[in-house]
Amino acid sequence: MSGNTFGKLFSVTTFGESHGPAIGCVIDGCPPGLALSEADIQPELDRRKPGTSRHVTQRQEADQVKILSGVYEGVTTGTPIALLIENTDQRSKDYGNIVEMFRPGHADYTYWHKYGVRDPRGGGRSSARLTAPVVGAGAIAKKWLREKYGTEFMGCMSQLGDIPVPFEDFRHVHDNPFFAATSDADLIARMETAMDELRRAGDSIGARIDVVAKNVPVGLGQPIYDKLDADIAYAMMGINAVKGVEIGAGFHSVAQKGAEHGDELTPEGFVGNNAGGVLGGISTGQDITVSIAIKPTSSIRTPRRSIDKQGNPVTVETFGRHDPCVGIRATPIAEAMLALVLIDHALMNRAQCGDVHVDTPRLR
Amino acid sequence: MSGNTFGKLFSVTTFGESHGPAIGCVIDGCPPGLALSEADIQPELDRRKPGTSRHVTQRQEADQVKILSGVYEGVTTGTPIALLIENTDQRSKDYGNIVEMFRPGHADYTYWHKYGVRDPRGGGRSSARLTAPVVGAGAIAKKWLREKYGTEFMGCMSQLGDIPVPFEDFRHVHDNPFFAATSDADLIARMETAMDELRRAGDSIGARIDVVAKNVPVGLGQPIYDKLDADIAYAMMGINAVKGVEIGAGFHSVAQKGAEHGDELTPEGFVGNNAGGVLGGISTGQDITVSIAIKPTSSIRTPRRSIDKQGNPVTVETFGRHDPCVGIRATPIAEAMLALVLIDHALMNRAQCGDVHVDTPRLR
Amino acid sequence: MSGNTFGKLFSVTTFGESHGPAIGCVIDGCPPGLALSEADIQPELDRRKPGTSRHVTQRQEADQVKILSGVYEGVTTGTPIALLIENTDQRSKDYGNIVEMFRPGHADYTYWHKYGVRDPRGGGRSSARLTAPVVGAGAIAKKWLREKYGTEFMGCMSQLGDIPVPFEDFRHVHDNPFFAATSDADLIARMETAMDELRRAGDSIGARIDVVAKNVPVGLGQPIYDKLDADIAYAMMGINAVKGVEIGAGFHSVAQKGAEHGDELTPEGFVGNNAGGVLGGISTGQDITVSIAIKPTSSIRTPRRSIDKQGNPVTVETFGRHDPCVGIRATPIAEAMLALVLIDHALMNRAQCGDVHVDTPRLR
Amino acid sequence: MSGNTFGKLFSVTTFGESHGPAIGCVIDGCPPGLALSEADIQPELDRRKPGTSRHVTQRQEADQVKILSGVYEGVTTGTPIALLIENTDQRSKDYGNIVEMFRPGHADYTYWHKYGVRDPRGGGRSSARLTAPVVGAGAIAKKWLREKYGTEFMGCMSQLGDIPVPFEDFRHVHDNPFFAATSDADLIARMETAMDELRRAGDSIGARIDVVAKNVPVGLGQPIYDKLDADIAYAMMGINAVKGVEIGAGFHSVAQKGAEHGDELTPEGFVGNNAGGVLGGISTGQDITVSIAIKPTSSIRTPRRSIDKQGNPVTVETFGRHDPCVGIRATPIAEAMLALVLIDHALMNRAQCGDVHVDTPRLR
Repeated sequence: MSGNTFGKLFSVTTFGESHGPAIGCVIDGCPPGLALSEADIQPELDRRKPGTSRHVTQRQEADQVKILSGVYEGVTTGTPIALLIENTDQRSKDYGNIVEMFRPGHADYTYWHKYGVRDPRGGGRSSARLTAPVVGAGAIAKKWLREKYGTEFMGCMSQLGDIPVPFEDFRHVHDNPFFAATSDADLIARMETAMDELRRAGDSIGARIDVVAKNVPVGLGQPIYDKLDADIAYAMMGINAVKGVEIGAGFHSVAQKGAEHGDELTPEGFVGNNAGGVLGGISTGQDITVSIAIKPTSSIRTPRRSIDKQGNPVTVETFGRHDPCVGIRATPIAEAMLALVLIDHALMNRAQCGDVHVDTPRLR
Repeated sequence: MSGNTFGKLFSVTTFGESHGPAIGCVIDGCPPGLALSEADIQPELDRRKPGTSRHVTQRQEADQVKILSGVYEGVTTGTPIALLIENTDQRSKDYGNIVEMFRPGHADYTYWHKYGVRDPRGGGRSSARLTAPVVGAGAIAKKWLREKYGTEFMGCMSQLGDIPVPFEDFRHVHDNPFFAATSDADLIARMETAMDELRRAGDSIGARIDVVAKNVPVGLGQPIYDKLDADIAYAMMGINAVKGVEIGAGFHSVAQKGAEHGDELTPEGFVGNNAGGVLGGISTGQDITVSIAIKPTSSIRTPRRSIDKQGNPVTVETFGRHDPCVGIRATPIAEAMLALVLIDHALMNRAQCGDVHVDTPRLR
Repeated sequence: MSGNTFGKLFSVTTFGESHGPAIGCVIDGCPPGLALSEADIQPELDRRKPGTSRHVTQRQEADQVKILSGVYEGVTTGTPIALLIENTDQRSKDYGNIVEMFRPGHADYTYWHKYGVRDPRGGGRSSARLTAPVVGAGAIAKKWLREKYGTEFMGCMSQLGDIPVPFEDFRHVHDNPFFAATSDADLIARMETAMDELRRAGDSIGARIDVVAKNVPVGLGQPIYDKLDADIAYAMMGINAVKGVEIGAGFHSVAQKGAEHGDELTPEGFVGNNAGGVLGGISTGQDITVSIAIKPTSSIRTPRRSIDKQGNPVTVETFGRHDPCVGIRATPIAEAMLALVLIDHALMNRAQCGDVHVDTPRLR
Repeated sequence: MSGNTFGKLFSVTTFGESHGPAIGCVIDGCPPGLALSEADIQPELDRRKPGTSRHVTQRQEADQVKILSGVYEGVTTGTPIALLIENTDQRSKDYGNIVEMFRPGHADYTYWHKYGVRDPRGGGRSSARLTAPVVGAGAIAKKWLREKYGTEFMGCMSQLGDIPVPFEDFRHVHDNPFFAATSDADLIARMETAMDELRRAGDSIGARIDVVAKNVPVGLGQPIYDKLDADIAYAMMGINAVKGVEIGAGFHSVAQKGAEHGDELTPEGFVGNNAGGVLGGISTGQDITVSIAIKPTSSIRTPRRSIDKQGNPVTVETFGRHDPCVGIRATPIAEAMLALVLIDHALMNRAQCGDVHVDTPRLR
């Protein structure tokens, strides 16, 4: 409960620093009887891992996951599942020059004031590298949800800086380095050019990511506080660099009228999905739709003003290997977080309302 | 932990339904020694209560709060503080016609599928009336934070439907029925006209609300998951009808470059506040700035398509007394939620890092 | 999580002080669809309430319970159930003389040092009166467990001071003022005489209470930490004045050999129950058997040495109305706590292992 | 929250099985700034580890601990500390014959019914080997408490089967293989003989262990539920094979009178310690004294009746390497659990009452 555990019933406790010997997590509450091996987890980690294109950090990490516990003869036993990922490509000297000062937009200043001690190597615990164990845990959640309810997760980049990326089909996200759901080669080329320019300029850019869960059971979520959308917002805003979260119509709902926003119901299904799949904090059975804003990477080569530990003015330039757009690798992370929220609520729901049955048809 | 408790160390557990005998909450973890009486709480409830202008619901509720425990001779004792607010103006017959069907945009359908039973009177537990106890708890949090750190909370409406409300000064929010931070009488008149038309049309509208916390100590928040901004997003998205949350630059950060977004530090303070007062999940000491999107009220008189419990198509019109814009009364609620997040993290911080001291100057 | 909430999935948050306006609790997580009214709860409160014989405190409290929420048309809705019990017979002046000093064996000294403020009226929050809401919550837990699994709870006093009370049958506990499971009128008379002498002497005495749960499903409990027996120990030691807890053979197991202690299994069932119904932290399906030690009441008329707030030596005599043996009324409380532990684990189990099925026969 | 995490603010989440690749834990909430290395932890693990005398299991495990995170340049950073202990001496074939049947007194039957799958190698998760990570976490808790408050932990065996071990001085516990606080060589010889006979007979025996914490700050614990003694009972009953817990006078308090039990206060200190250092659930500042009953090891060579997975009667003999008295190695485990309870409450107390000050002298 000290902040490094996500979820109440499917609880993921992470540990590790960017340049320590290893990172990982302990998953407590995975139901027994799920067939599971590293092969179920590794593909998700590979989607997130660094070094897959010239547009992301060039740090070389295999991000090879090992299961240390909780699985016996290929099946989960109901006991904690520990995942371990060794760090192999640390180059801590890259960070030597920033120990005594605070990078703008970075956690340096806040960690220092909070803890009075700070692991500066690669951002320590504040590194986006710490999303790797989450993606591993999310892979397990996804598998369980898929087998139990047929739930599927998709995500894509819908905006790169000021370039909108119109949605075409999720199957295209694997065909380009940006998780863009488009087959428009010109658009992809424009994005590549923009990224190349940024990299040369030593600057960075933000992005918008959309994620969707399909085939979600109706009834997940609690009426107050632990609303499904509240927990989704918590999960998404907890991803490094996220500054905004929308469910369904999101900020568009401000200018909507009630007669436009409220999704009508017909025997054939809901007529729209302004709700984003959540009403009164509880899933409707429609797609859960979430959109997040990711700020530009803070670690940039451009010289910037700051102070040192004594409060004196300094100039900071950050070298080392960084993603010029952390949003690029954020899609699998956002999917994983959404899966973790859903499995937690699915387990909670069967605890409290597991045997409820109504004859009313379930809509999509 | 079953969803109706907010906060880990300053925990607020609410109870009650819109048309039951009473609503209230139990606050566990309020530090001892705080001077407290109903007079500290009532003014905040009065800001939120119904019937204060023609633009909000005409239900007449005094929302008179009673402290049942945790205070002895005018001072908190460190034991749970129970707040009780009796419901006085229930007119349950108003809702008779909607028991058998599901209002679009409402929690009716999801509650029914989840619980198999539903209190239809005034929305039961899904009513925005349930934010009253939260506002009461928030008043206590605000008082403690003010006395301890000088923290202050302000909020305002920054958009009503498609009418933007430019920020002028928080002192104007008390001078109009919309919590608008403006002295522009023409603008207020335009908002009043828009609301009058909506009411006549039997429709509703959304709103955007901004809240700010000033004089926040540096160091509140956890590195992963329980980031201060993650908990703020959770708190805000948990308010009825909220569909989007932004911290600092929010969705604007998507199109920002790193050199623009990352707030520089100088001995005189931070140069900007795109961070919204949070870096790496931890407060910087700057203002915490949050913006939320509130959807239009779902209960409208306009006839709408829906289904009944058997799945047959029906037409729904909602009568009864409703806010045509739930956003109007949302400002004190959002302030209260922000205060609850901050006190929880302030207590957590003194648990874990209470005696940390660094000589580095604290910036604003 | 600040100490006044019991249970994770069936969470009971209590509030109130002995001489405040009211005491009560909020129960979060009760499954929907349980038929419930005050009539289901009141009988359990009546078993615990003061003033039922000359051997317990003469404070007159009807302990009339009111349900404020969570029930609609006689059925639980899945939302929080608030129980309210008004205090009617406070005589705070009785306690005037002990505000400035600390009663031996009482929480006065520890509350004072912890909180720096103390509600001295009737012991404030440390009063055994605060077990009333727990008994109310326990009544709901008992009802749900009975309907779901046929689980039944019984308890009795097995020792009063140095008088052992041999177990005969639980049906006798209603026939005497001590919850003694005996029909031995001479023994009851001896207990009455002992209590009368104690009362005259202004002294008090301890007791041992045994509680049993029958028809417990197999599989409740977690392997490590949240073992069923660990949570039972926590629950029991949390009852006022309890100083020891045993499960099954308890302290007798110290001198047992393995071949004697380990309960053999046969197709007809377990051969013994040294385990007390729990193996490896998980219920076996046998009776859960628990025994607790209750210390003598601390509030006695006998003059005793103490100090005042300044640290000066003083003599303390406690007047007011007290139970000369708090153990007498402890039986329904211990039953309630056991029920609360079991329902919490039952809900947890269906969250995590709800659909596990093995063909192995279930033993008793 | 799924059962494998201990503590709220100093949270220890363990993972691993007896014969998996590794066991370990993640400690979340350790305050920053504590000097820490493996050398602080290893000595405690060495006290617990197997193979140190002929009276304990002959499994050879170095129990070498590695810190994977949370420490930078020899100092804790406030982020999670992961401890890893590799399993080196697994001989899983030893357990081959018991996969299809349930050992009496063991968790086999309950795990099987709960999870429908079971790791039989060395008891899997139910093995006492899983107390190793706890001892590691406890070493960190002990160090922090020692540096902060001067708190010290001691423990000893006070009874081995039917042989009482009178307390002499804690300094003797290192001089014999039983953690006996005695210099009586004859008594030790008698214990050795008893153990040798047991081992030859293929049987096992129980034990009683006492633990004490000295220099505990006053004010730790919560009034209701999370009482310090309730959490201690939970911690102790959660240790493998524990069947009973006493605080202070424990079960002796049943036969005590109030005038005897309630510890008087004088300016020189408390006159006695029947309370065991806890009043009203809160520490008094006196020694915390705890006593626990440990049942005889369930894994014995003596043939015993049981059933197999189909419910047929079978005879079970357990070979492999086992402790004939699990109580022997329990002392450091019980100390560790007590330390974990105390640090958690110490952090909770500074969260809620951190700045309370009263002038009343603190007694011991």
